Amino acid sequence: MNFRDLHHGDRPLLLPNAWDFASGAALAAAGFPAVATTSLGVAVAAGKQDARGGTVEETMILAYSLARLPAPVSVDIEGGFFDDPKEVGDLVAELASYGIAGINIEDGRPTGPLASTEHHTAVIAAVKQAAPDVFVNARTDTYWQFDQGSAPETLSRAKAYADAGADGIFVPGAATDADIEALVTGIDLPLNVLYMPGKMTYEHLADLGVSRISTGSLLFRAALNTAVTTALEITNGPVDRPIPSYSEVMKLVD
Amino acid sequence: MNFRDLHHGDRPLLLPNAWDFASGAALAAAGFPAVATTSLGVAVAAGKQDARGGTVEETMILAYSLARLPAPVSVDIEGGFFDDPKEVGDLVAELASYGIAGINIEDGRPTGPLASTEHHTAVIAAVKQAAPDVFVNARTDTYWQFDQGSAPETLSRAKAYADAGADGIFVPGAATDADIEALVTGIDLPLNVLYMPGKMTYEHLADLGVSRISTGSLLFRAALNTAVTTALEITNGPVDRPIPSYSEVMKLVD
Repeated sequence: MNFRDLHHGDRPLLLPNAWDFASGAALAAAGFPAVATTSLGVAVAAGKQDARGGTVEETMILAYSLARLPAPVSVDIEGGFFDDPKEVGDLVAELASYGIAGINIEDGRPTGPLASTEHHTAVIAAVKQAAPDVFVNARTDTYWQFDQGSAPETLSRAKAYADAGADGIFVPGAATDADIEALVTGIDLPLNVLYMPGKMTYEHLADLGVSRISTGSLLFRAALNTAVTTALEITNGPVDRPIPSYSEVMKLVD
Repeated sequence: MNFRDLHHGDRPLLLPNAWDFASGAALAAAGFPAVATTSLGVAVAAGKQDARGGTVEETMILAYSLARLPAPVSVDIEGGFFDDPKEVGDLVAELASYGIAGINIEDGRPTGPLASTEHHTAVIAAVKQAAPDVFVNARTDTYWQFDQGSAPETLSRAKAYADAGADGIFVPGAATDADIEALVTGIDLPLNVLYMPGKMTYEHLADLGVSRISTGSLLFRAALNTAVTTALEITNGPVDRPIPSYSEVMKLVD
């Protein structure tokens, strides 16, 4: 099934996020119908900060290698790596030339407010013009940016991104039934949410009408945790460590 | 404690093997006094075959990033990446300039017989001349090359490598008490063995007189396994997967 159709099946697409070729290949070999990347994992694997735009080379090399997997691949390109929409379009056209099926592009910025709606729509439009067949998952960080969920701002941005040509809308941080229902109802495109262990289940998200569920950095953090635990257990015996949070993982590069 | 002294403590040095900056940083943060790399992990993470010499760039970039960890780092350079001993020496001098404390260099070759003792001793001598302060862990694949252990060939090679200036001897595949005792007794340098889960314990290896215990690709394989398991459990519920073997991991790049 092609990548676009996977967003319109009977059940949500669970899209696991890889950070290197090995993790992507292992996920494809395990039967996942598509694989995405996590910019946090790609950045920290290289000893760099996420979302700072400093991993364009690592991202492109990884994308090139993952394109040979027997499953469609979606690449997280952070905020687009370039300010100029045309340059972002050229980048995605290059990804398309590798055989990449989709991209994820966020309006969040590491410091300060979100990118303006005008800027992000211009980037989405430029990407769709440069690579019309690539599935553009437009991520809005409204829920992460504000202390509490902001459905009106989210819906406003989602509509603008859809009008600019986005193929799906990703709202990480949306977690309550009320928020997710409002987004499913108010957004005409497939809704993507971030899987948050303990706060939601796949079955419940399916019932709510979510189309795509991303694992974000969860698999990367769980993998790192297992590496450390496995090593500690050789000398210390059984070790039970919680999967580290985002901030603990980021300390690795501080 | 410096890297060399860690081979002469009261207890064996458990040296965990990382494959990217994140895994190396996580291991250092967990308190391991030193960190090494696994060429298999580095290669498969990049979608390449191990021990083919095709990952010199990935290895050097990784080494450069790991050198800033607050723990000494030893880098697995496969068979040296170059045939010419002088070129291997130049490579290790560059690693030394980054601040890398040790290297691991193997006489095994992916196909055919081991490198000749003459060749491997020439490489070790060139490395010690180019980078005298770098701890050279000379690995002999005698146990992996032959169907059964080969203590006489191993001891002969270990002596030649020691005479050429090696600082330690690594014999992956040595697992029985008799074999390990023969190696500890017959080799004047610190003996490094590969930790094989279920076949040995840290305490027993300590009793046998082993100086250094490497985890090889174990942590990398366990990490990948957890990534896949964590993703599968979101839709399938609890999943129990054995840690994949070497050959299963290698399929990722086939």
